[in-house]
Amino acid sequence: MATPNRQVRLGARPVGLPTPDDWQHTTEDVPEPGAGEFLVRTEYVSLDPAMRGWMNDARSYIRPVRIGEIMRAAALGKVVASNHPGFAVGDHVTGTFGVQEYAVSDGRGVIRADPAVAPLPTYLGVLGLTGLTAWFGLLDVGRPEAGDTVVVSGAAGAVGGVVGQIAKHLGCRVVGIAGGAEKCRLVTEEFGFDACVDYRSGDLRAALREHTPDGVDVYFDNVGGEILDLVLTRLRLGARVVLCGAISQYNATERPTGPANYLSLLVNRASMTGMLVFDYADRYGEGMAALADLLATGAVTAREHVVEGTVDDFPEVLLKLFTGENTGKLLLRIADR
Amino acid sequence: MATPNRQVRLGARPVGLPTPDDWQHTTEDVPEPGAGEFLVRTEYVSLDPAMRGWMNDARSYIRPVRIGEIMRAAALGKVVASNHPGFAVGDHVTGTFGVQEYAVSDGRGVIRADPAVAPLPTYLGVLGLTGLTAWFGLLDVGRPEAGDTVVVSGAAGAVGGVVGQIAKHLGCRVVGIAGGAEKCRLVTEEFGFDACVDYRSGDLRAALREHTPDGVDVYFDNVGGEILDLVLTRLRLGARVVLCGAISQYNATERPTGPANYLSLLVNRASMTGMLVFDYADRYGEGMAALADLLATGAVTAREHVVEGTVDDFPEVLLKLFTGENTGKLLLRIADR
Repeated sequence: MATPNRQVRLGARPVGLPTPDDWQHTTEDVPEPGAGEFLVRTEYVSLDPAMRGWMNDARSYIRPVRIGEIMRAAALGKVVASNHPGFAVGDHVTGTFGVQEYAVSDGRGVIRADPAVAPLPTYLGVLGLTGLTAWFGLLDVGRPEAGDTVVVSGAAGAVGGVVGQIAKHLGCRVVGIAGGAEKCRLVTEEFGFDACVDYRSGDLRAALREHTPDGVDVYFDNVGGEILDLVLTRLRLGARVVLCGAISQYNATERPTGPANYLSLLVNRASMTGMLVFDYADRYGEGMAALADLLATGAVTAREHVVEGTVDDFPEVLLKLFTGENTGKLLLRIADR
Repeated sequence: MATPNRQVRLGARPVGLPTPDDWQHTTEDVPEPGAGEFLVRTEYVSLDPAMRGWMNDARSYIRPVRIGEIMRAAALGKVVASNHPGFAVGDHVTGTFGVQEYAVSDGRGVIRADPAVAPLPTYLGVLGLTGLTAWFGLLDVGRPEAGDTVVVSGAAGAVGGVVGQIAKHLGCRVVGIAGGAEKCRLVTEEFGFDACVDYRSGDLRAALREHTPDGVDVYFDNVGGEILDLVLTRLRLGARVVLCGAISQYNATERPTGPANYLSLLVNRASMTGMLVFDYADRYGEGMAALADLLATGAVTAREHVVEGTVDDFPEVLLKLFTGENTGKLLLRIADR
């Protein structure tokens, strides 16, 4: 009897936060890898805010996931069968394998994970697209210089935490914005930010002013909405705003309001620039090497938030991103059945 | 008896459109230039949308005009007395002389206007800060390449008209946005834009889509508001939005809404960057030389909208900018009394 392959598929376009009805849970036989292919058994599924966008039927930087299609996801797994000369049984690899227990790959877009260099989950975090987003977004778009004030929203999240640690390493003054005292403690004590502003408590405007007395040179935005609008009022001359995400907007059912303070860009001759990690694909090696060095020296701490479960738990775990329950990189670990 | 010097001063901070009560009209004796100074009789006063911002008590790129202070303005005049070795009686000069009939200057920030090179009013238009704003904003921030689609709002205005003509000269496809059929005719027939969309007539979204079938590479924004928000939906990958002004917002009495479509910057890895001509002060000579060449070859047409009057007419003429009555560079010509 063939081994079953549990899968999670998009069942409907969500309105607002995804509900259980928006998903389909299916079982197929584990596929056989063809010539030049290999079979991966999923060990960790990456959960990313961008996934919410992929579920909408809207023109974007990547085509939407189709109704009935296996949900797109980066994952890490072990090669369990191979007809590919470059990948052997027992290798650990990351790739866009989707929310399923087994996936066949021809090796395109697949990166090897070496457990001797870093724990496997880190290959979906600091050494994966998460860390690469932080690296290229901060260095290439934010262009911080030593002494700059760098503000990072979603500071306890997967990308934000890495951004701030890199900025600290570069000699910047780093201020995080996060939701809740516990997250702020993580941001300052574990990630080493100079300060963290809790947007759920007190007067955000006053707290931000207090912690950025000279204004903001780089703002790395993961959240959008009111927080972006507020930070715009703190920009210094020539400031750079990196638009990396807007998690506050992803489940909005009404048209979001724009950043009313955008003319601060004009007054301060500042820029606001969108970035997507996929544009740096030909430089991933360079970024991974730099991030591995930062991990090795302890300049950057990898923080993963691992939830144990099965692929069927994916829909519920995904919600943690939007309710703000995760700290660091959110992963679903798939038990070996 | 000393010659009287009529002056227009800021009388109050306007709320919304400035009213006559927001101004003071005063007369002083014409001052005597001291050592190293010269006296200028004003011939043309420049009227610029940015003036509205200078009247607000708000932190900006330049300090507000104080209540009771002569209204700040660029002007062109003739030297009528001089103790300055560099400026002789009869010279024509431009500078920030303010809204008054006579001004004393020590020469700082003063640029000579040569009527043999171009008509005098052009030194406040294409060869003045207006043209330099267009030149550096487009080339340095917009960075168009031949074949790019460039959209310009306020296309019949002082800066917009020059931006589009430079972009055409660089081999771009240029689409203007202006208010009214007459302005659009000017933009296409006189300035040579490929197309002009009349935002006062019909479906702006549909018209913009029609005229930018491949999207927008560079958007030079002089108006802000809904038009900015709409153009954001047309951005191509890597597009550059130049924030030069936001005339639709300058008299707003309520907090303006921001560009709700700003996430188009993220999806398209595009940038939105503020620019101010003052940052290019050390390159004005380079810009003026280039613009003089474009005028000489006919690649750029200078269009001034000259209103004849006295300095006392300044408050009323200023309103033309905000009611959209001017085409090209708005100037007040001061009759010699």
